[in-house]
Amino acid sequence: MSARKKKLINQPENILNEMLSGFTQAYSDIVKLTDNGLVVRAQPKAQGKVGLVIGNGSGHEPAMIGLIGEGLFDVNVAGEIFTAPGPERIVEGIKAADHGAGVLVCVSHHAGDLMNAEMALELCEMEDIDNVDMVILYDDISSAPKGSEPERRGTAGLFFVWKMLGAYAEQSGDLAATKAMAEKIRDNTRTLAMALTSCASPITREIMFEMPDDEMEIGMGVHGEMGMGRQKVVSADETIDLMLPPILEDLPFQSGDEVIVMLNNSGSMTLMELYILYNRVAQKLDEASIKVYKSWIGPYATTQEMAGFALSLCKVDDELKGLWDAPANGASVKQL
Amino acid sequence: MSARKKKLINQPENILNEMLSGFTQAYSDIVKLTDNGLVVRAQPKAQGKVGLVIGNGSGHEPAMIGLIGEGLFDVNVAGEIFTAPGPERIVEGIKAADHGAGVLVCVSHHAGDLMNAEMALELCEMEDIDNVDMVILYDDISSAPKGSEPERRGTAGLFFVWKMLGAYAEQSGDLAATKAMAEKIRDNTRTLAMALTSCASPITREIMFEMPDDEMEIGMGVHGEMGMGRQKVVSADETIDLMLPPILEDLPFQSGDEVIVMLNNSGSMTLMELYILYNRVAQKLDEASIKVYKSWIGPYATTQEMAGFALSLCKVDDELKGLWDAPANGASVKQL
Repeated sequence: MSARKKKLINQPENILNEMLSGFTQAYSDIVKLTDNGLVVRAQPKAQGKVGLVIGNGSGHEPAMIGLIGEGLFDVNVAGEIFTAPGPERIVEGIKAADHGAGVLVCVSHHAGDLMNAEMALELCEMEDIDNVDMVILYDDISSAPKGSEPERRGTAGLFFVWKMLGAYAEQSGDLAATKAMAEKIRDNTRTLAMALTSCASPITREIMFEMPDDEMEIGMGVHGEMGMGRQKVVSADETIDLMLPPILEDLPFQSGDEVIVMLNNSGSMTLMELYILYNRVAQKLDEASIKVYKSWIGPYATTQEMAGFALSLCKVDDELKGLWDAPANGASVKQL
Repeated sequence: MSARKKKLINQPENILNEMLSGFTQAYSDIVKLTDNGLVVRAQPKAQGKVGLVIGNGSGHEPAMIGLIGEGLFDVNVAGEIFTAPGPERIVEGIKAADHGAGVLVCVSHHAGDLMNAEMALELCEMEDIDNVDMVILYDDISSAPKGSEPERRGTAGLFFVWKMLGAYAEQSGDLAATKAMAEKIRDNTRTLAMALTSCASPITREIMFEMPDDEMEIGMGVHGEMGMGRQKVVSADETIDLMLPPILEDLPFQSGDEVIVMLNNSGSMTLMELYILYNRVAQKLDEASIKVYKSWIGPYATTQEMAGFALSLCKVDDELKGLWDAPANGASVKQL
């Protein structure tokens, strides 16, 4: 009833290479795999536009390989399972993303990702690669209190940043303005996640954390990090009634605001459940006179087969709505 | 390690209504829910074009609600969990899909779906609703031997039919030609599925079938129907080496053929595993000199949280490639 130890892989040490090979062959019209193991766009962006790079531990597919493509990111530096890539590889990613207008390294806030990105920027300075900057992104309200936002973790809500920032950088040659846009979207985004079950590491087949059969946890991080504590499982409506109010209070989102809503599937939730959960979200936002512009429901950033979801809201204005609706073509992000 | 009895729902008797309400609110730019519980397109197709209807038991989301939209189907008649809708409701669906050029009722071959669709067509005859026809669709090679194709079950490979037939009917005013196109795509499609774990009914919370911790089953149907028998779990590459040859032999797919490949996630497979599996599919098709035109990897037709996947191939010519690439906008099928 919890983690799945049976996984269809070959040798654990080949997971990353075989996954990247399979992924880039399946979507060869969108992405390609470089000789040094980077996932890059099959159609590079125009010269004179800002490059976007992200490094991350694997195991969260389709994050982040699925957001490389036109109108999205330029380069993904995929690390081993739940392990950030090293600084030398991030520097290779920065070089591959350079289209003559600087490169922004986007960091989902976790200790390992931040440390390696900071070291990569130091290496760039030593190599006289200039016009490189980084932005630290976070959204999980359970990981630090209001007022301490920069201490929060990056979780599924960052997909709002990836999508809109990708659209922005497709048009912009201004690195500072691109970084400011990333910060604007980040500061408009809030997420709270929950989990019903644990999951198993594909390498060790060990269960990542224990979860009793009749309990759930609100505030779970994307690697099973502790949240706001355990409680007995409640209904779908009661779950949303526990999760939505703290999100609304945190920004705060207010009457008259317009938002994009995301229900991210952490792994083995059914869409049936997510649509039922969304039904309550829609009802409660309507009662609060908060208007939904668009919604995303599906697997965007997963934690293996963990059953759970993340609820994210992003407050949007006309500028962000335009970036949201802009064309995009990634394996996991297609926008008409 | 198998089924998940904890599900985030409210009252079991409200699953269908709450799911359809949540789904149609989340994607209100694509679909709407009619007063009589049909999922229809927000932007109806042009007058004088053939209407496409499908009824099905729910619990397989995003199938089939996710394929209603422009360039796809017109009406979905969603039944209760794993239960085909009754004939009166299908007739309502036929009426809603009528744009003056006839309506094709598409039936994924299962006893209940077929019986209710046949009764719906009899009701149409009694009501003098003419220019309605049905097509029976199947793809699962494990459910009946070669030579007895019409006895086979409909499974995930029918998404090839849904996508391409939707594009065809968007342009066609000829019901007989539309039915012939459905049969052409069906006859070019073959599927074989496998499962690592069982799943639990969201209504009874009962486990649908038992599966030992060290075994897998090849040939599993979308409701856990028996396949070709159990065996010990093997590696990803070995799994593909068991599944791909019988698919290739069945059509047969031959050197020089061009195909679209689908790896459908039955529920709680990880994309990591599916990309690794795809890597072997690509290698073996290359060795057989069969060219991959495009690939789809993700959850298209699920069986709750069952861990497993279906491998489907569709042989394509220029006509089918054109239909594949045509614009589409459904919640689960977006094509640029």
